[in-house]
Order: sequence, then C-alpha cells, then structure tokens
Amino acid sequence: MKFTKMQGLGNDYVYVNCLEETVEHPAETAVKVSDRHFGIGADGLILIKPSEKADFEMEMYNADGSRGEMCGNGIRCVAKYVYDYGLTDQTQISIETLGGIKYLDLTVEEGKVRQVKVDMGSPILEAEKIPIIGLGDRVLDAPIQADGMEYHITGVSMGNPHGVVFLEDVKNLKIEQVGPLFEHHGCFPNRINTEFVHVLDRQTVEMRVWERGSGETLACGTGACAVAVACVLNGLTEEEVTVKLLGGDLLIQWDRRQDRVYMTGPAKVVFDGVWPDA
Amino acid sequence: MKFTKMQGLGNDYVYVNCLEETVEHPAETAVKVSDRHFGIGADGLILIKPSEKADFEMEMYNADGSRGEMCGNGIRCVAKYVYDYGLTDQTQISIETLGGIKYLDLTVEEGKVRQVKVDMGSPILEAEKIPIIGLGDRVLDAPIQADGMEYHITGVSMGNPHGVVFLEDVKNLKIEQVGPLFEHHGCFPNRINTEFVHVLDRQTVEMRVWERGSGETLACGTGACAVAVACVLNGLTEEEVTVKLLGGDLLIQWDRRQDRVYMTGPAKVVFDGVWPDA
Repeated sequence: MKFTKMQGLGNDYVYVNCLEETVEHPAETAVKVSDRHFGIGADGLILIKPSEKADFEMEMYNADGSRGEMCGNGIRCVAKYVYDYGLTDQTQISIETLGGIKYLDLTVEEGKVRQVKVDMGSPILEAEKIPIIGLGDRVLDAPIQADGMEYHITGVSMGNPHGVVFLEDVKNLKIEQVGPLFEHHGCFPNRINTEFVHVLDRQTVEMRVWERGSGETLACGTGACAVAVACVLNGLTEEEVTVKLLGGDLLIQWDRRQDRVYMTGPAKVVFDGVWPDA
Repeated sequence: MKFTKMQGLGNDYVYVNCLEETVEHPAETAVKVSDRHFGIGADGLILIKPSEKADFEMEMYNADGSRGEMCGNGIRCVAKYVYDYGLTDQTQISIETLGGIKYLDLTVEEGKVRQVKVDMGSPILEAEKIPIIGLGDRVLDAPIQADGMEYHITGVSMGNPHGVVFLEDVKNLKIEQVGPLFEHHGCFPNRINTEFVHVLDRQTVEMRVWERGSGETLACGTGACAVAVACVLNGLTEEEVTVKLLGGDLLIQWDRRQDRVYMTGPAKVVFDGVWPDA
C-alpha cells in the first residue's frame, strides 16, 4: 500500500489515494499504521476517495480505529494531496466528510499548495445546542467555578462543543490539572473541549487546547475557530485573527455578514512510503 | 533520502543505507526525522556505513541529535537490513559501533532475516566498575532503602549500569514513582537503569525497565542481559532464559565457560520511504 504521511500544525495522518489503492479493512489498518513504535505513527488514517456529491471524499479513521467526522488540519492536507499529486487542477474544491461537504480554497506557489482556506460553517451560540447547561441561554464570559477557582467561559459550538477561557498567562498554565476540571464539569453534558487563550493584540491571540478524550494537543482547528468567535463576541479582537497554537499558526476570519468562519493554514507532505502489510 | 523504518521490540529507528546515500548533517537530520508529529517519527537515526575494521559500521544518533554508542535492538535491525537488502550474503557478520565491534548470527527464513543473535560481551560485576557505592564489592541481592521501603538489588554492568530488583508483581508496579528513586539514589554515582523482574519459571522471567534519562521504555537489550545474569547469580533460572519485555521477548544466554552473554531477538522492517528534505 502506497501512502503519504502529511501534517497540518503537527496533526499527522497517513493518507492513501483510494482512486488507485484499495484498503480492505480500514479500521484495522488505521490501528496498525497509527502505532508510533510498531507502525508508521500517526493520529489516524485518511482515505481519499471519489465522491458522487463533491469533488472528493475524505474517509477518516482515528488511531483507535473509530470513524472521525472531520478534522480541520486533516482536510487541508487532503486538499494539498489532490492538487500536488495531480488528482485535480482546480484551486477551489469540495470535499465530502461525515460532517458534511466542505469547501476549500487553495493557495498555490511554484506548483504546490502552501495554504488552504476552509469554510468551517457557522458557529452555534445557543447554550442548549452546544450543549452547556446552567450558565444561561448564551454563555458569554460567564463565571464558572472549577476546583475552588473562578474562571470566565464563553461557549461556542463549531459542530463540536468548545469552552473558551481567557487568561493572562497560558504558557505556564498547568493544563493537565485544569483541563480535566472543565472536561468533566457538570455544566457540559457531552464534556467539552477547552481553549485557554491569551490575547496578544487585536489581531493576534495565543492558545492551548485540552481536547475531550485526548488531553492537550498541538492544535485544534475547530477550537481555533471557536476562539476567534469568542474573541469577537467579547470585543477583544477584530473579525480576522491569527491564532497561535503549539503546532503553528492559523488565520481565522469570522465573516459576520454571512455568518461563516474561515480557517486558513498550512498543509505539509512529510514523506512518501510503502506499507508492506496491505 | 531513501530510508527504511525498522523496529526491534518497538525500539524504532530510521535506517539509511550510506553505501548509496549521503547524509550531510546527521545530527540535525536525526532531530528532524525523529519528531513523531513533524518528522518520520523514531527513537533516532542509524546510518549503515562501510567499515575498515568490520563488515559494516553502525553510526547511531539519538532523537536529540546526540551520538548513541550501541543499541541491542538497533544492531539486530542493521543485521536484517544488510542481509535483506542484499548488502551481504553472509549470515555471520561483524558491525563496528562506538561501543566496539559486535558479532552477530543471522537466522534466515525464506530469504529474510527473522532472528538475530548478538554477542553482547561479558558482564561486569565489580561494584566500583558498574559503578555502585556503599553496597559492597559485589552487589548481590543487597538490601537497599528507597522511600522507606526495602528492596533487594543485584548490580550488573553490560557496558552501562543496571540494577536488577526481583518482585512478586511487576505488572501493577507504579514504575513512574519507584523508577526515579533508584535512578537518583545515592548509591549510583552515574545513575542507573533499573529492571523490575518477576520470575515465572526457571526458563522465563518478565520485566519492566526504567532507563536513566528516558523513563519506562518498551525494551532494553542490555537490561535483559543484566537480568539474565542476575537471575543465574541468584540461583533463580538456568543460564538460558526468555525475558518477556513490554515490547516483546528476548532469549538471553549467559555462557559462563566463555563468560559471554548472547541476546537473540527479532528485527522487523516497518516500511520503506523517501524523506524529501535531504
């Protein structure tokens, strides 16, 4: 099985071109190839397939073999793959995912995709749809107690639930202690992804993210979108903001007239390889 | 740069055939390729080179770019590489390392190397040469206090210092609490690798290892050798013993007449790839 290892902000997957290759048992293969000592090493497996509804389909499996709906860092890599490897010559493409069809703009330099802009859809702010309970109909800078400390949280769903917490210092935050307090807090019936954010200026913020079920990760695309929305709602930044994550930078734009959030970021080929087992 | 990812008991390196490839800046390359999110992902980089003193040279770099002397799991992979990829047709080969020239016997099935036996040299038992201080000239089942508990330790050097501790239950051992107590104990001026061992029968033991500077690892070849020596010295097993590690099994033989320790274990190709950066 030919594959390409790609990463966006350090979020790395094994990509297989299923217009040419067949993966018989994708869930099992995802588990094997994702193992970082006995396999290729990745956050999961993404199969690039033909689609009847869009230009391509992205079929995503997590490292444990479960299906993934959508991944902002992953879909940028799919866009780079289909252009750089000659599956399309278009720079505006659509990709079918379990989370719906996504539309992408490709920035090409010297024949290769450098940046990809993804329409991440509209933010959901109604507390019961996020879901968040007990903090009002909209959760905007709402005080919340965690382990005896008071924090302020803004709730945003980008298809998955996010709680955005502004702090003066996120670099020295003991996130492995604080993150679980939010993840398992009674206000979040489906648990929550928590972003800890320090505003640098009106165009720039830095953040760290605690993802439910995963702990701290290098980057979270939907989390960066939720952060930009929360920044605007709280009057802290403009509608276009560079979000600095541990894995790199994302440019997030919340177009309030159309109520769409756009995420622009890098996608990189790490290496091409051949997996002998399938 | 063409490379092959290989692993022995989960100890994985990026291998480059430097009879064909040139790696200009190996220390920098080791850091880049070893990164498990932005690079290939490995415990380090091993260059396979011609040698004037032996059949081949193994030039090893750790993930931080520092030079590694020798690695029992790595050298078995070098042996598999040179045979499977046609660099030699011999099944007894010598490999030059920073830790001296090593001699290896290859077991071949259907044209591929399945197991490799490595002459790991003679164990060193004199306490001052290991080094261990304050526990006598030889450290054989010596009582030692750690965090108010009494353990019994046997000291063996296989070129690097090991302390072997026999316990009734290693599966449930809180090694991340106990390991550092030994690593930083006053009796070990150069710190120490500690093996926690449960004897299953006279031919089989299971172990977990806490490596100085690395914490718990899936496997440690010299550690398994030290364990076999300690088992024999304490009358617990025969001279040939299967050592079950988290990453898999090693067969260790201590030939007391020749005073040599032989380690036999697997080596596997994970995949072949091309790294675009060099």
